[in-house]
Amino acid sequence: MALTMHDCKVLDAQWATTDLSHRFTPGEPGVLYMDANSIGPMPLDAPARMQQILQQGWAMARRRSWSELDWLDQPHSLAARVAHLIGAEPADVMITDNTSVNQYKLLRYALSVQKPRRVVVMERDVFPSNRYVAQGLQSAGLVDLRLVDDMTQLDAALAPDDVAVVSLSHVDYRSSVRLDMATINARVHARGALSLWDLSHSAGAVAIDLRGSDSDLAVSCGYKYLCGGPGAPSLVYVHPRWADGAWPAVCGWMGHADTFAFDQDYRPGAGPSRFLVGTPPVLANAAFSTAAEIWREVDPQAMDARHRSLTDTLIHLLDTQCAGLGVMVESPRVHAQRGGHVAIRCVDAPASAVAQALVASKVIVSARKPDSLRFGVHPLTTTHTQLWQVVQALAQVLQSASWRDPRFSGPTI
Amino acid sequence: MALTMHDCKVLDAQWATTDLSHRFTPGEPGVLYMDANSIGPMPLDAPARMQQILQQGWAMARRRSWSELDWLDQPHSLAARVAHLIGAEPADVMITDNTSVNQYKLLRYALSVQKPRRVVVMERDVFPSNRYVAQGLQSAGLVDLRLVDDMTQLDAALAPDDVAVVSLSHVDYRSSVRLDMATINARVHARGALSLWDLSHSAGAVAIDLRGSDSDLAVSCGYKYLCGGPGAPSLVYVHPRWADGAWPAVCGWMGHADTFAFDQDYRPGAGPSRFLVGTPPVLANAAFSTAAEIWREVDPQAMDARHRSLTDTLIHLLDTQCAGLGVMVESPRVHAQRGGHVAIRCVDAPASAVAQALVASKVIVSARKPDSLRFGVHPLTTTHTQLWQVVQALAQVLQSASWRDPRFSGPTI
Repeated sequence: MALTMHDCKVLDAQWATTDLSHRFTPGEPGVLYMDANSIGPMPLDAPARMQQILQQGWAMARRRSWSELDWLDQPHSLAARVAHLIGAEPADVMITDNTSVNQYKLLRYALSVQKPRRVVVMERDVFPSNRYVAQGLQSAGLVDLRLVDDMTQLDAALAPDDVAVVSLSHVDYRSSVRLDMATINARVHARGALSLWDLSHSAGAVAIDLRGSDSDLAVSCGYKYLCGGPGAPSLVYVHPRWADGAWPAVCGWMGHADTFAFDQDYRPGAGPSRFLVGTPPVLANAAFSTAAEIWREVDPQAMDARHRSLTDTLIHLLDTQCAGLGVMVESPRVHAQRGGHVAIRCVDAPASAVAQALVASKVIVSARKPDSLRFGVHPLTTTHTQLWQVVQALAQVLQSASWRDPRFSGPTI
Repeated sequence: MALTMHDCKVLDAQWATTDLSHRFTPGEPGVLYMDANSIGPMPLDAPARMQQILQQGWAMARRRSWSELDWLDQPHSLAARVAHLIGAEPADVMITDNTSVNQYKLLRYALSVQKPRRVVVMERDVFPSNRYVAQGLQSAGLVDLRLVDDMTQLDAALAPDDVAVVSLSHVDYRSSVRLDMATINARVHARGALSLWDLSHSAGAVAIDLRGSDSDLAVSCGYKYLCGGPGAPSLVYVHPRWADGAWPAVCGWMGHADTFAFDQDYRPGAGPSRFLVGTPPVLANAAFSTAAEIWREVDPQAMDARHRSLTDTLIHLLDTQCAGLGVMVESPRVHAQRGGHVAIRCVDAPASAVAQALVASKVIVSARKPDSLRFGVHPLTTTHTQLWQVVQALAQVLQSASWRDPRFSGPTI
């Protein structure tokens, strides 16, 4: 039987203790934010924290902040507060630079510890930036890139026993298809290769178990579900067995074992701290810290269960309310097989036009080529009732064909 | 005849039109900030701008900000507003990542356009992070590192005609000795090598002419004299003759010629935009933009003239008021031969203890091994009268030997 608006309210009441929306800013009144896959919500504390660091740090303490405040410790302390979300120990994780730069560092690191192997396996349709990072390495003659269409081709790609690292998105940025880390890691390891996971579309949305799945390396975007703020620095994870395996490709003073000794020679810091390079982005880290303080208190299993309830509900509502309207659920129907967002395929209309029509009716979603429309579901702030309203708005856009408005014919970013 | 406090006040009146301290926060009352070589002052507009981007961008517009606000344009627009300070055209410059990461990118870029040459020449005592970047490349087998003691050894190092790039600090981070770019570029080019300049201790302090001196590549810290905020992103400069010379080493979607086309294959963006990699640090860029708007109106020659007057005065005051107190001016006495700060050598006392005693008496300075104490002079906000007070405080610390207090025996960062 189809869920009603009332049912959604009942569900929200049942899940009330896991609703942390009171810790975040609600945003613009009347707007439904289904874009946590792009930028997660802002913690309520972020503006005050930012004022504090601007006034007390930058304006008043100035240079003294480096030693008297926590500026140099932030890459470590931020990581320690979110490590449990991805099944890692605090010492396995560091927060620094951006995701693509970290993808570069970890690919190079995998190649260093796997010498003389130099083959990188990747999915052809991985998020473009990850592919560009690898193409750059190939163009420099540092790797041989072996692209596969999907995981059915993985074993064949691994068969020559020459693969250094398999670099995969945990969750596809269009369909939200989630790969099974443990199974794939086992296949990768059986052929002597390492795994490098991009968690951008799963970290902070669903429970991840990097240690339990025996993952080697991982990166994640910090500003999507993790709510680190627009352009926030990124996560780096290194399994302890590789923690001291090699020098990083990009050596810098913040990754030195004793930065302010100003040693003549580089010596890598312990574990993933070697992946720090230059001065940390203090203001960005201050914003991220307000989210990290919320995450510190979050039980990943409770988060995951709430996210499952929300996305199961969304899929149910899409099935029941949008049947016959030219859209179909693209994401897997089993929660363990999908990531943070739910995608629909737009069959009868351009996904970008439908997305823009939804944005015009105050439902913030995004489209990706060729025909995916994405609803980013945040496990701490989205409610079942909001999902009811979102699907109502989608049905309205499709029924009225409001997406045909020429205003909506451009591309969406 | 020795300058008096009154003379300093007269000088301030003479230079009043170039004093932009009203555009910046004064900081803590009674504190004298001589640390622009570490963190420049905060523009008055920074807190309001940050609140605006947090509330209207992150909290309200969320994902829409990518297309509706200037978030993706900031690396370009920031660069365009400061390019004239370093003698560059807007199209030559980009603001992204941190200085050490950019040092890595430009070293690799120089090697790409200079193939098969693979020798990097550097000063042995360059800022450690720059040396670590090069040591990392050497450890990976990508370069041969040739260290020189100083510029008297440059021609010999270049003589084998195998040098790809000479990577130099424009201004020494301890002594403030400034190298002559034009002369050195000519020597470098005569042997078919490229120059890569680190402007961290000169950009935003003294006038720089990258184009006029025929410099090939440059990076600069953004948070010292340029006032971009703690951990601000860094400048990348590429001379137009190399702008489209090769792929960057670190390829990412933001450096792609058409980011949101999500092309299968990487194609570098025009000129230095190829050195963008991942998502820009939006909050950091917003802070930087308040400084960039001030810089846009600053005439580099007027800035340089004021900085000369300030640092000439500081050196005069040190000479006249601290004679016989166990310190001597270490920085060159000709303005064109020194950078943003003035360093003294502490002969009779540990520089770090003297620095900490000064900080305790509200004069914010820093020390560097073995015996340099640095006064960072900001060309827009420091006054001659402040310099009088600073030197009075130094004389007091030295005369009273207050630096002997055990509190001041630790290292300074």
